[in-house]
Amino acid sequence: MTTAMALFEKHEKTLQDAIKALHERTYYTPYPEHPKAYPAEANEAGRNWFAGSMNNEFKELKIEADNWIGEEVSPYMQTGIGVTYPQLSVEQLIANAEQAKTWGTLSVADRAAILIESLARVEKRYFEIAYATMHTTGQSFLMAFQASGPHANDRALEAVAMGYAEISRFPSEVDWVKPMGKFDLKLRKNWKAIPKGIGLVIGCSTFPTWNTVPGMYASLITGNPVIVKPHPKAILPIAIVIAELRNVLVENGLDPNIIQMAVDTVQQPITKELAEHDSVTLIDYTGGNAFGDYIEGLNKTTFTEKAGVNSVIIDSVRDIGAVAQNIAFSASLYSGQMCTAPQNVYVPASGVTTADGTVSFDEVAQAIVKSVEGLVNHPKMGAGTLGSIQNDQTIKRITEGGNFGGNLGLDGIDISNPEFENARLFTPRVVITDAANRDAYSHECFGPIIFIVKTDSREASLEIAAEMARTKGALTCLAYTTDVEMQDAIENTMNATFTPVSFNFGGAAFVNQHAAFSDFHVTGGNPAGNASFTNPEYVNKRFVWVGNRYA
Amino acid sequence: MTTAMALFEKHEKTLQDAIKALHERTYYTPYPEHPKAYPAEANEAGRNWFAGSMNNEFKELKIEADNWIGEEVSPYMQTGIGVTYPQLSVEQLIANAEQAKTWGTLSVADRAAILIESLARVEKRYFEIAYATMHTTGQSFLMAFQASGPHANDRALEAVAMGYAEISRFPSEVDWVKPMGKFDLKLRKNWKAIPKGIGLVIGCSTFPTWNTVPGMYASLITGNPVIVKPHPKAILPIAIVIAELRNVLVENGLDPNIIQMAVDTVQQPITKELAEHDSVTLIDYTGGNAFGDYIEGLNKTTFTEKAGVNSVIIDSVRDIGAVAQNIAFSASLYSGQMCTAPQNVYVPASGVTTADGTVSFDEVAQAIVKSVEGLVNHPKMGAGTLGSIQNDQTIKRITEGGNFGGNLGLDGIDISNPEFENARLFTPRVVITDAANRDAYSHECFGPIIFIVKTDSREASLEIAAEMARTKGALTCLAYTTDVEMQDAIENTMNATFTPVSFNFGGAAFVNQHAAFSDFHVTGGNPAGNASFTNPEYVNKRFVWVGNRYA
Repeated sequence: MTTAMALFEKHEKTLQDAIKALHERTYYTPYPEHPKAYPAEANEAGRNWFAGSMNNEFKELKIEADNWIGEEVSPYMQTGIGVTYPQLSVEQLIANAEQAKTWGTLSVADRAAILIESLARVEKRYFEIAYATMHTTGQSFLMAFQASGPHANDRALEAVAMGYAEISRFPSEVDWVKPMGKFDLKLRKNWKAIPKGIGLVIGCSTFPTWNTVPGMYASLITGNPVIVKPHPKAILPIAIVIAELRNVLVENGLDPNIIQMAVDTVQQPITKELAEHDSVTLIDYTGGNAFGDYIEGLNKTTFTEKAGVNSVIIDSVRDIGAVAQNIAFSASLYSGQMCTAPQNVYVPASGVTTADGTVSFDEVAQAIVKSVEGLVNHPKMGAGTLGSIQNDQTIKRITEGGNFGGNLGLDGIDISNPEFENARLFTPRVVITDAANRDAYSHECFGPIIFIVKTDSREASLEIAAEMARTKGALTCLAYTTDVEMQDAIENTMNATFTPVSFNFGGAAFVNQHAAFSDFHVTGGNPAGNASFTNPEYVNKRFVWVGNRYA
Repeated sequence: MTTAMALFEKHEKTLQDAIKALHERTYYTPYPEHPKAYPAEANEAGRNWFAGSMNNEFKELKIEADNWIGEEVSPYMQTGIGVTYPQLSVEQLIANAEQAKTWGTLSVADRAAILIESLARVEKRYFEIAYATMHTTGQSFLMAFQASGPHANDRALEAVAMGYAEISRFPSEVDWVKPMGKFDLKLRKNWKAIPKGIGLVIGCSTFPTWNTVPGMYASLITGNPVIVKPHPKAILPIAIVIAELRNVLVENGLDPNIIQMAVDTVQQPITKELAEHDSVTLIDYTGGNAFGDYIEGLNKTTFTEKAGVNSVIIDSVRDIGAVAQNIAFSASLYSGQMCTAPQNVYVPASGVTTADGTVSFDEVAQAIVKSVEGLVNHPKMGAGTLGSIQNDQTIKRITEGGNFGGNLGLDGIDISNPEFENARLFTPRVVITDAANRDAYSHECFGPIIFIVKTDSREASLEIAAEMARTKGALTCLAYTTDVEMQDAIENTMNATFTPVSFNFGGAAFVNQHAAFSDFHVTGGNPAGNASFTNPEYVNKRFVWVGNRYA
């Protein structure tokens, strides 16, 4: 077994900086987020790599298989990208993972070294991953680059750092000496963080690496072999990450099957078979609530990020125009397909106090409508903000909703993407409705839609937002108030539903953005999910402390 | 709201020492365990207090109630002790707890100060608690003193220290500054550990404070009001602890209902009504497996200590006599009514290697039988080791088992307790059986019984012990081997079932004893329970990290 000492020395500073950062929670990243920070030729090389990968077998996993399958479709081209992946049976995947459990006998330092090295390799492939992400999720290039590249690496490193910190927290051995009066009772003791078993990580179609790597690296740093089961429509980005980690494992004399990828199709899914397998003890899941509830009910150790109804509470503002623009951007970014995107904007019927006097409900609604219109029609910003729609169902759900029993303040606008004429586009629909029309807005409506809800009062706005968070879940709450007492009321009431609040965001601050090493993503306390990137529980639940004593 | 600053200063060193100790895991306690460390007159005062409490209302909770109930029976006198407690309805208890949620708004330092002060008050009542414990559980005076007094205080302090460490782990506020190239994005952020709700702690009949205070203090330090529901046959010891904490709360201007006691009877239990109440979000439970499984299935945050089948593996020893004595003592202590007591002793048919040559299976079995006989008949050690039997059912289960399909190596011996002529006694029955007689020994048989199981080989011994731990749970494994390879095999195999191993214990080292700040009690990884005193999860699962951001 390798000791990976040289690798540990290479990455020790990154590891220690990351541990420090996640405890200080100030801004930190070792991975620059802007494409310009990387070699100029890398962008074109990445684009070419993606073009060359299309309609080919993805051989980087170095796996022999009888069947190669793949059915990813580019939301920008609306054609299949034709990449196929080796298909292994569930029994084969589990048998390989069982074989790879020796991973758990490595020291946590060795595991950390291997894992951080894999992130360094991933860093060299950000552009490939970006194009793969664009053409599976529909994200814009810049979002695909940042979310699947440096921001995903941040989250993976955060999980590695937290796992290392927790496992290093107790001594591996001590001499325990208890004075008994006439003599001392002496025992030698040791403590081991025993991995729970095999981890399954179930990916989603919109953030195939950002939402997958936290669970994957958290299970790995704590000694569990992992099987990643990506969404069948978003495999290529995470396949690259997995391939790079397998390379590092092999280079260090380790079993590449410590990390495996399971592929399936929409018609013949294997997720339940994997999840229910006795050998699978840990499950990470990102996706819809129905399947998430099923996962949580499996009596295994589960980490879920499901969906919620995210709120905006507008009480009082300085500048309603700036507020409307901020909300419009947050709701339009990647066409509302972020789990953190605001959905319901609560505005009192009596209007909103501003520095220039009271603005009526209708004026607030119109300000938001105009901001969305302006943004999506903006020749420089529109296409890059919206990206494209990952799948037809998202558009179908919204168009079938019609006016959702309210008034259509803004319908989808006919726009085009100059770079991709076949891009699947649908701009945010804005529905304006009374609070009484509860059925319309009281569940998650994934995708490009905003509900502007007229409430009886600011207190009623808060009450509805809190009830939604408590009963349907929420990942975010965006609030605007210039009243300190109201600010306290919003913070305390929403925090009691385990929902974080972002106050008075404008300019470059957007509620959607959760920064690694600082913002906990999902609290785990309401129906939007049962886990949080990355609190101590997120790693501690993946192993068991066991101590032994020697007389 | 009080700030409890002076109290915090008073106890800060204890708190910091405790946090240091639980991370170093060397021997530590601020609470001397020997009765002789306390004022000479305290013993008699405690005994008198207990005598005076009998057949009276327990008024120390300072609660008015229409009904006063109580049905505790002394295992030493086999008569009711006649203490009654105020009975409140479940709705009243919950309403009081809801009212007391302001506890969660105190700083963790204030909470720690109040809680550690309560332990200082409890320290002054060790002797009262000891007599109350003796006459409800049947423990000997010394065990009752140590387990319900200093050792329970240790475990309570450990939970307070771990909770304080975890909640203090992240900053309460920071300025987060992200360089954006042309400008900096600045946000003010805070983080709060939001308590999950109301904690219910369900006590057991054998260790009414030691098994109750960890969950009680863990829920309290993390900001949750707590309702303790003791076993109806073992209320008085924890009632004293609760009364002392209520005193400290009132003295500091706080709601005494932050901690409440719910009482019921065997005929009219209220535990399920409490456990299923929507407002109860956290449940700590110690007791049998069937009810524990029900608690775990409630879809709440649960912490259970159930039961398991604890093993002794004898491979090779230096001195079989010393080993037999050690096992005899561990199995006889409190008549086998400790959750950590060994039950099944696996010995190969080919015998055991010793420094004086091989000892046959029969000789090993006889050495254990003789050691039990010698111990229980010992005029000075017998009564104090055995204590008495908490309830008739324990004796009934064992006597009804007869020879359990094996040979009765030793039946219960007719002994008496010189101090209590009516004491309920039953000395350990030793059953000698083949491994094939699986039904006899493959479930927990609570109380004074030892199975000596003849196996095909030492490897078979280990295999059976591991299977029992995996399928039935185990809190301890005691192993004797002088072979380094076998030692590794036992440690790795048993640790893989999340069972700790104690090797070659003799002299004053006993497998039953789990020391606070050093030994994790129950690992949480096998069917014997889902939680561990006190790992980080034990406190972290009781609150949720929520962060807020301000532009």
